[in-house]
Amino acid sequence: MKINQNYNTLEKSYLFSRVAEKVAAYKQAHPEAEVISLGIGDVTRPLCRSAVRALISAAEDQGRAETFHGYGPEQGYPFLRRAIREYYGSFGVSVDEEEIFVSDGAKSDIGNILDLFSEENTVLIPDPVYPVYRDTNQMAGRKIVYMRATKENGFLPMPDPAVEADIIYLCSPNNPTGAVYTRRQLQKWVEYAKKRGAVILFDAAYESFIQEKSLPRSIFEIEDAKSCAIEFCSFSKTAGFTGTRCGYTVVPRRLLREGSSLRDMWMRRQSTKFNGVSYPVQKAAAAVLTNEGLAECRENLEVYRRNAKRITDTLDAMGIWHTGGKNSPYIWMECPNNMTSWDFFDDLLSRGAIVGTPGSGFGENGEGFFRLTSFGTEENTAKAMDRLRRLF
Amino acid sequence: MKINQNYNTLEKSYLFSRVAEKVAAYKQAHPEAEVISLGIGDVTRPLCRSAVRALISAAEDQGRAETFHGYGPEQGYPFLRRAIREYYGSFGVSVDEEEIFVSDGAKSDIGNILDLFSEENTVLIPDPVYPVYRDTNQMAGRKIVYMRATKENGFLPMPDPAVEADIIYLCSPNNPTGAVYTRRQLQKWVEYAKKRGAVILFDAAYESFIQEKSLPRSIFEIEDAKSCAIEFCSFSKTAGFTGTRCGYTVVPRRLLREGSSLRDMWMRRQSTKFNGVSYPVQKAAAAVLTNEGLAECRENLEVYRRNAKRITDTLDAMGIWHTGGKNSPYIWMECPNNMTSWDFFDDLLSRGAIVGTPGSGFGENGEGFFRLTSFGTEENTAKAMDRLRRLF
Repeated sequence: MKINQNYNTLEKSYLFSRVAEKVAAYKQAHPEAEVISLGIGDVTRPLCRSAVRALISAAEDQGRAETFHGYGPEQGYPFLRRAIREYYGSFGVSVDEEEIFVSDGAKSDIGNILDLFSEENTVLIPDPVYPVYRDTNQMAGRKIVYMRATKENGFLPMPDPAVEADIIYLCSPNNPTGAVYTRRQLQKWVEYAKKRGAVILFDAAYESFIQEKSLPRSIFEIEDAKSCAIEFCSFSKTAGFTGTRCGYTVVPRRLLREGSSLRDMWMRRQSTKFNGVSYPVQKAAAAVLTNEGLAECRENLEVYRRNAKRITDTLDAMGIWHTGGKNSPYIWMECPNNMTSWDFFDDLLSRGAIVGTPGSGFGENGEGFFRLTSFGTEENTAKAMDRLRRLF
Repeated sequence: MKINQNYNTLEKSYLFSRVAEKVAAYKQAHPEAEVISLGIGDVTRPLCRSAVRALISAAEDQGRAETFHGYGPEQGYPFLRRAIREYYGSFGVSVDEEEIFVSDGAKSDIGNILDLFSEENTVLIPDPVYPVYRDTNQMAGRKIVYMRATKENGFLPMPDPAVEADIIYLCSPNNPTGAVYTRRQLQKWVEYAKKRGAVILFDAAYESFIQEKSLPRSIFEIEDAKSCAIEFCSFSKTAGFTGTRCGYTVVPRRLLREGSSLRDMWMRRQSTKFNGVSYPVQKAAAAVLTNEGLAECRENLEVYRRNAKRITDTLDAMGIWHTGGKNSPYIWMECPNNMTSWDFFDDLLSRGAIVGTPGSGFGENGEGFFRLTSFGTEENTAKAMDRLRRLF
């Protein structure tokens, strides 16, 4: 019996557990302090009314023999795939229902999609990065090449013709930096991928935060992306489904490699290692995509946008460089006074009782930067910004 | 870019799609016929009242900021892991909450657990078999060795000291044969695995159908199994969760290989490639495991048991050899008149309008056998048995 030894190459400790430990220690030492977290990327607004109503109605369906739903299609119910297709259509992207796969979340799909690729591929990953891209490839022993995201390139690295890569991770709006690629920039990535025969894994989990119409919400807004990209998206941030769990992945029919359809391979993977998403959850997700549901979700998104604006306005007033915020729930700020990320974390916690996420935890290019999120309540975000302003 | 070429070794067509095609063709040719399916292993009884109530109450939680649940623990909420621990305790098995992992279903975990093992391992799989065991290993390119399950060994193959295997699949009560290992038999498997340093992947999805107290419901009823086995279980059949989706996997702390804890590896896998099960679904699963929920589920299980008894009584009266039924929702019958599995399928469909599953679809040793399930309604099962008796 041999285990997968690649697991032993993974770093043991995790960014957020170190954050949690430090916060717990601070709270113990200062039981009176009112700690505000602008750290972890979880939402705080409840599910919209349409989603709750649909969950309840589907739960009642499950309690009656005539309306009971057993095994559903592994790919997701047609009613939800149709709603997702129409949602894409609402911003001008045409995808086929057969290209849409419903899952329990983008994190699962981003990990599981790697089943389709040989372990011999080279993977191109931005630094700083959402750690899942790196860890999932390390688990399979793939060679990883990093591209530098820096203040100089606005944390939006562009293709380097000298770098040979087969699998390319792009996340826009980006986690952790909040930076958003333009159409022209994504076009360059599509050209690079096509030239190399590479596949772009495009994480669009934060697309609903894009306000500027000129910015692309899907890689499939780019011509020819359907021959070189897979897109991952989620109801987590659009509709507060972080605990209700539903996402979707689009694998275009035109995406062929070595003569095989990646869409058909993914269908085979999902029908072999997955049994579809909970029926009540799919009904709730479909309710989110009705006109009424989308309007309700926009109310929640507006709260997060106001928080983001309050944060960026504060940083602007303080003369602190930052990206994100306008089209993203994340604000990526330079640490004041040339502090390291962890020094700033400690300073902010000890003097301001504010929790954020050290940029260096997302990769070496994150050193000296810090991530704040707009997912808190309006009251807490306002309080935190008042404190921040007084501190520096 | 290289794809995972192992996908090209998978058989294209799937047993149940061929069954579905034949049934569709029959229905088109005989629109008046009342076709009864005793084929696919899906339940027909609705969720129990406790589960529905919990789903509704959790949906309401998700609609209020004060009770909203965002990201939960990847391993599952403590309230559900505690309930599962107590459920195990009710039949005398002691597992630790930290050894229990909640997931969206046993199929996902049975596929994903393979991430933990090197591709160089040899896999031992019974034939006939639930196709997922075979396909998931073929996707990773592992060498597969089959053990013959036959009428002679009661479809319960025992270890052969001459066979070298690292990963061993056991399913008891078995899908598709309904056969159930005794404690003494499982003890022999545990001894074989320990001697070889192998790991047993024990599929206990049908444990709740076991009526005879002398038969083991968990591999962990066997001494020392915690040093060589992982167990997969599910709410699908116990509580009709096939469409609601919740399962659990037990990876004992004592299970070490090459110095690594498989429990810790699985924790790392799940926290990297999974984001936990929907909160309302976990609440429903926990409600199933209350005294009230279990009593309600027993009512449903009794319906399936009566169906199974009706099927086995019919086969007994007809003098047809079979396994399963008493402690399993599956009845595995020898085809009458030396028919092949597909010949019997065609005959039963064309003359009796009854749908079952050809045994040969589960592997070459299934040839000449046929699977019936007890998951239909009582009315349909009774009708189908009347028809069967008249046909032969």
